[in-house]
Amino acid sequence: MNHAISNLQKRDLNHIWHPCSQMKDYENFPPIVIKSGKGIYLYDENGKEYIDAVSSWWVNLFGHANKQISTCLANQAFQLEHVIFANFTHEPAILLAEKLAKITPDGLTKVFFADNGSSAVEIALKMSFQYHQQKNKPNKRRFLAFTDAYHGETLGALSVGGVDLYSSIYQPLLLDTLRAQGPDCFRCPFNQNPTNCDTPCISSVEKILKKHHSEIAAVIIEPLIQAAAGMKMYPPSYLKQLRKLCTKYDVHFIADEVAVGFGRTGTMFACEQAEIMPDFMCLSKGITGGYMPLSVVLTTNEVYDAFYDDYESNKAFLHSHSYTGNPLACRIALEVLKIFKEGQYIEKIKQKSTYMKELASNIYNNHPNIGEYRQTGMVGAIELVKDKETKEPFSSEERIGYKIYQIALEKGLLLRPLGNVLYFMPPYVIETDEIEKMILTASESINEFFASYNDKGGKLI
Amino acid sequence: MNHAISNLQKRDLNHIWHPCSQMKDYENFPPIVIKSGKGIYLYDENGKEYIDAVSSWWVNLFGHANKQISTCLANQAFQLEHVIFANFTHEPAILLAEKLAKITPDGLTKVFFADNGSSAVEIALKMSFQYHQQKNKPNKRRFLAFTDAYHGETLGALSVGGVDLYSSIYQPLLLDTLRAQGPDCFRCPFNQNPTNCDTPCISSVEKILKKHHSEIAAVIIEPLIQAAAGMKMYPPSYLKQLRKLCTKYDVHFIADEVAVGFGRTGTMFACEQAEIMPDFMCLSKGITGGYMPLSVVLTTNEVYDAFYDDYESNKAFLHSHSYTGNPLACRIALEVLKIFKEGQYIEKIKQKSTYMKELASNIYNNHPNIGEYRQTGMVGAIELVKDKETKEPFSSEERIGYKIYQIALEKGLLLRPLGNVLYFMPPYVIETDEIEKMILTASESINEFFASYNDKGGKLI
Repeated sequence: MNHAISNLQKRDLNHIWHPCSQMKDYENFPPIVIKSGKGIYLYDENGKEYIDAVSSWWVNLFGHANKQISTCLANQAFQLEHVIFANFTHEPAILLAEKLAKITPDGLTKVFFADNGSSAVEIALKMSFQYHQQKNKPNKRRFLAFTDAYHGETLGALSVGGVDLYSSIYQPLLLDTLRAQGPDCFRCPFNQNPTNCDTPCISSVEKILKKHHSEIAAVIIEPLIQAAAGMKMYPPSYLKQLRKLCTKYDVHFIADEVAVGFGRTGTMFACEQAEIMPDFMCLSKGITGGYMPLSVVLTTNEVYDAFYDDYESNKAFLHSHSYTGNPLACRIALEVLKIFKEGQYIEKIKQKSTYMKELASNIYNNHPNIGEYRQTGMVGAIELVKDKETKEPFSSEERIGYKIYQIALEKGLLLRPLGNVLYFMPPYVIETDEIEKMILTASESINEFFASYNDKGGKLI
Repeated sequence: MNHAISNLQKRDLNHIWHPCSQMKDYENFPPIVIKSGKGIYLYDENGKEYIDAVSSWWVNLFGHANKQISTCLANQAFQLEHVIFANFTHEPAILLAEKLAKITPDGLTKVFFADNGSSAVEIALKMSFQYHQQKNKPNKRRFLAFTDAYHGETLGALSVGGVDLYSSIYQPLLLDTLRAQGPDCFRCPFNQNPTNCDTPCISSVEKILKKHHSEIAAVIIEPLIQAAAGMKMYPPSYLKQLRKLCTKYDVHFIADEVAVGFGRTGTMFACEQAEIMPDFMCLSKGITGGYMPLSVVLTTNEVYDAFYDDYESNKAFLHSHSYTGNPLACRIALEVLKIFKEGQYIEKIKQKSTYMKELASNIYNNHPNIGEYRQTGMVGAIELVKDKETKEPFSSEERIGYKIYQIALEKGLLLRPLGNVLYFMPPYVIETDEIEKMILTASESINEFFASYNDKGGKLI
């Protein structure tokens, strides 16, 4: 990738510090300037088209610059763009809260609004902690989280995350979180198969809960998919067991559905598949169909009631962000739910994901450097390995995923990897022929990379 | 306030947990359902009009449902609503970063995007910490902040805040922050006058820096106004001294201009008045004119360079939020800067704030229960006191500010207080007659309250 750098690219690099990037990488790989979007496609300043196979960090559901959503956003902007949300309210927030309470697991009745996934997680942690304080359990001040978990990057959210890449340097600033081994189905230490296992790995969690439950306020988990860790998938039965343990040991269950909510796993929310009700559910990303930041935390009457008292009791949850309950975002979120229903998207996701899984499994599962193709709902992941038999991973320094990503971009496919894992998380409006194109282009990119890699005796290209 | 509760209000209370609220208060004072906005006005479901004197938590600059901003938002939505911001970019972000680098103090050249003020503060803290780690100063892992500071409510941001109301219950979850006495000009222990003092109170900061500088990564402060603490104002000379101390002791200066940026203090940024360059500047709230969440952290080449290295060095700043660099928000922010310039708003703010200050000072300064009317730029604050002579405050249990707020709402004025402080922070489009109406209505509300309060021998009404 050594195109001449454009004027806009130069100007970008003069002033913008991009997220989750080593900016030096941009010397050889300058940022692609996107001018417009339509459906699953993004178009750069030269008119080149890219399939957005990652839904722009997992947020887009119904395509870029969706006319229906843009129209409703415009209408709301001309009526009421925002209003303070303490002592004030508005119809979009009221209708959205009603609908969310209705479609999430029974018992989640109260909706607290915020701006992004990190803030939602921080709110859930703070609420759980404060709940226990106000219920005279002052020792319940720690959290239990999993290896390979990701919950955001503000310091509280980062404290419960378990991906060292994001958190290790900040250790001195982080909470002393208890850490359980996450469910590792690809390299299962019990040699089980995730489709029918009885999750013996939950024992690691129970051990910790048994010993420490009196100090633990909540367990936090990404239901069904540990996404940022590389789309690590595990079965609903694990969540069912975990819910039972949380109840047994009087510990809150926080379901971080920021990445997996809104149909990604094949059901509207991942918790549905385990038939469980968490005590807190965090939602964001797809909630606005990929248009703008919004997050919510849903919780129970039981939690709400512990904060409900006379003002003088000082039991209120005094958390706020300026744009809490933003009418533009709420209005869009309502439209997203309308599209889900009217377009029968949960049904469509089932059909499309079945097709995607069959095709991708056939193409990828015999590749010598693909340890596994796995899929849950509309999330498909290709696990690249050095050795298919032993599942030995490539070292992170080789940046295999990153190099295949660059090749795929040349071919018009946006496939940003997570280390050695390439994944598909396309907008739900993707059509059959586009699914084919996405899977085949990824396959070509992988083959092209390994042809050159193997030619050079497994060295970097 | 015992109107019949409307259907929408009932539905709100069934499901919404409002921010920064004791929800039990809503039993007698249900949330006001806003249907639309125009200019400085909000309109509720019964058509009642409210002057939004607090700019809906300090975010609105150019009026509600501003046609120019709404039009540009709609245009962007139909072109490109969002795109992943790692390895990708777009014109609105590039132009915005250029403009922000140009209008903020010289030396602030790099722009990192996020969603809200809390996230911006967390980013500045993390960047400062990581900078020192990567400059081989591993002991610099603490932060110095001020009593009565407010920097947001995610756990990192809350850790540097100094308002007990928001943070005390969470102490076990917070960082061990060093705390200096903030500049308290209303009750100055040195009996100085903020218009011409030489800030002897800075000595408290120097004492801590002298002793602890080797462990301190950064000092964080709200320039000119400690807003959430009750619009506590202090002179630019304090910031000048603080900047000198930070340089002397090799400690970063983080300017949290989330509340005070974008013209609020009479200049585009508060730091301008002290002629200082912070090492980090956090901006949010008004950046989108009050439309939607967006925040940025500006920093220096010096900081940026400490993260710039080969990928393998692991020096990158791996922080991200899904909607980082959101095109809708960036496009609006550009329009806001255009309105500032074309409407000559910095000049207008000077004229309007001069008028506001004169009128308000005349009306409020002789009131027996107003300890002080103070104003910086377009932020005016009324400090309610029990005793004008001794400045004895009302106890927080009396909720004096809250009760006057309710009276003012009846009169069509939104004046949400901070404890015993009522304040004006209106949109810049407010006209002379509206400034008059705002100040006079507030005055009537205060008088009405105290007439009844004093009648009852100073008891609660």
